[in-house]
Amino acid sequence: MTSLSDLPIRDDLRGKEPYGAPQLDVPVRLNTNENPYPPSPRLVEALGRAVADVAGGLNRYPDRDAVELRKDLADYLGHGVTARQVWAANGSNEIIQQILQAFGGPGRSAMGFEPSYSMHPIITRVSGTAWIDAYRDEDFGLEAERAVAAVEEHRPDIVFLTSPNNPTGTSLTLEAIEAVLKVAPGMVVVDEAYAEFRREGTPSALSLLPGSPRLIVTRTMSKAFAMAGTRVGYLAADPAVIDALLLVRLPYHLSAVTQAVARTAIAFQEELLGAVQALRTERDALVGWLRGEGFQVADSDANFVLFGRFPDRRAVWQGMLDRGVLIREVGPPEWLRVSVGTPEEMAAFRAALKEST
Amino acid sequence: MTSLSDLPIRDDLRGKEPYGAPQLDVPVRLNTNENPYPPSPRLVEALGRAVADVAGGLNRYPDRDAVELRKDLADYLGHGVTARQVWAANGSNEIIQQILQAFGGPGRSAMGFEPSYSMHPIITRVSGTAWIDAYRDEDFGLEAERAVAAVEEHRPDIVFLTSPNNPTGTSLTLEAIEAVLKVAPGMVVVDEAYAEFRREGTPSALSLLPGSPRLIVTRTMSKAFAMAGTRVGYLAADPAVIDALLLVRLPYHLSAVTQAVARTAIAFQEELLGAVQALRTERDALVGWLRGEGFQVADSDANFVLFGRFPDRRAVWQGMLDRGVLIREVGPPEWLRVSVGTPEEMAAFRAALKEST
Repeated sequence: MTSLSDLPIRDDLRGKEPYGAPQLDVPVRLNTNENPYPPSPRLVEALGRAVADVAGGLNRYPDRDAVELRKDLADYLGHGVTARQVWAANGSNEIIQQILQAFGGPGRSAMGFEPSYSMHPIITRVSGTAWIDAYRDEDFGLEAERAVAAVEEHRPDIVFLTSPNNPTGTSLTLEAIEAVLKVAPGMVVVDEAYAEFRREGTPSALSLLPGSPRLIVTRTMSKAFAMAGTRVGYLAADPAVIDALLLVRLPYHLSAVTQAVARTAIAFQEELLGAVQALRTERDALVGWLRGEGFQVADSDANFVLFGRFPDRRAVWQGMLDRGVLIREVGPPEWLRVSVGTPEEMAAFRAALKEST
Repeated sequence: MTSLSDLPIRDDLRGKEPYGAPQLDVPVRLNTNENPYPPSPRLVEALGRAVADVAGGLNRYPDRDAVELRKDLADYLGHGVTARQVWAANGSNEIIQQILQAFGGPGRSAMGFEPSYSMHPIITRVSGTAWIDAYRDEDFGLEAERAVAAVEEHRPDIVFLTSPNNPTGTSLTLEAIEAVLKVAPGMVVVDEAYAEFRREGTPSALSLLPGSPRLIVTRTMSKAFAMAGTRVGYLAADPAVIDALLLVRLPYHLSAVTQAVARTAIAFQEELLGAVQALRTERDALVGWLRGEGFQVADSDANFVLFGRFPDRRAVWQGMLDRGVLIREVGPPEWLRVSVGTPEEMAAFRAALKEST
């Protein structure tokens, strides 16, 4: 039998393992920051209808530039963003890959501030771009001065700033983002996958778009829109950035079905964002409870919470799993991450954590 | 205003134009090898129902490895192919991109025999892989001896063999493919996007899979399955090849909706492949008619025909367009490509061609 090592794969892939959290079938899944609230029966029906409406034309290629969907996304974002400033793809992972293909590649580099989203370095390396690790502050924030120093030292072609950050939940200040924009020699990507969950008063980098042609703000429909299964990520940037991505995107990358499903979900935004409000409240309660129990907890503007510290976090993770609660062993050593679920799921989490520690 | 040239895009993208046939709204569209037969009302209804069935779980990520879809595709392919030998992605473009990411990349090269599918070199270059042009024979076939000589001269890490070939329609012999497999130092990709349209007696490279761990056969649901709007491409290869692709695929790349739609279409294969039979008959009639009119016509095993020769092919293309018939100006100079449409569309094509030449 042939094994992977017998094949002429790229040298830098040798010995690597596929990325991905275990997909385990347990009662309480709080490991991948999914939104626990499924689409309502009304939305389910609308989605079936929307797909039936386009199904009669599926023998034809989809709109290659997804113009209507981009218009809907621009309207949703506000901040004066237009359809020409929006681009969409199959998940924010594909958005990030396209950014790297256009602005990174062989001989170029991208930098991120760890701990952060683990796909940034993975997608970077697969694109042939060098990856540079920089580091967040002790409290998982990032002071403007330290960020600037790292950018000036390494002069990367792409800087990733994740806010709210995964897996820590912490946000960046607009000052830090502006300071990086000022000194970065290339593109600055602010990954705002969890933006809708941020606390009152936490800003979005969307407000920095005017006059910042090298700024890209990425978003996703997987979290606030509860559409992880649909795979739609998107970005807002200067129209010239979209022109650049058109050079590297696979033609017809976004299916007619995906475009129809995404547009339907956006039409139901009021309903979907109502659940976001419930999750923010549940998140704040979770942070309060964990701190009350004496755990260290990172500030969270996301739909998950990083908490610790556990000298043997594996044992705690396994103890939780044994009790039917799947959380994520990710991020800095001694910390664990839990997604915010329904009140019932969080009750199960609290009970299991007490028994596991 | 910022323009593309102000941005720090990769040097090799400077001055490039986005790929893609014009998406024009004309009565008769015969330019992108779409299947002219839309899904039946029965299939449309089943697609709506299939999506409604999964919509209630869209807040969760899809099956990352698309196990059920791969099983259905394996059953469809036959030739003893198993689910472990099949991989699926958003169109065969993404399949090709993943192959390049795993087996190509900086410092490596891929080769194709021109004229052929223009996305092969484009995706190759975006992946940082060098592209090497080799050439088909005068009649757009490829003799084993010439193919072997080209591979031995350049020793590429990946060889693309397209059969039936786009835009010429011509197929390769199994001997040519076997001969290339024997001397190629790396992977051999046989792009069979149009396989279901091949004439009686034309073989598929699927029969060469046993004992060929470096062979990859790619297929698509865009053509025979009339699902261009759904974006599903797939491949069959040794299970170790799938293991390699798992290292570079974006996690959760294939949406739950796409998986459900594709599985529904496969369940309707009898209906869909009936239309393929009609298109093959129409294709053979078209070749006969064109030859009868004195045109040069490449042998076609696909759902399109390459014909010529026109010293000013642009004028003929424009003349057709003026008469509401959109064909494709692609491939070798002096030749044009027309997709096989319905009998009514082909009647319009014939009338317009007579008036335009």
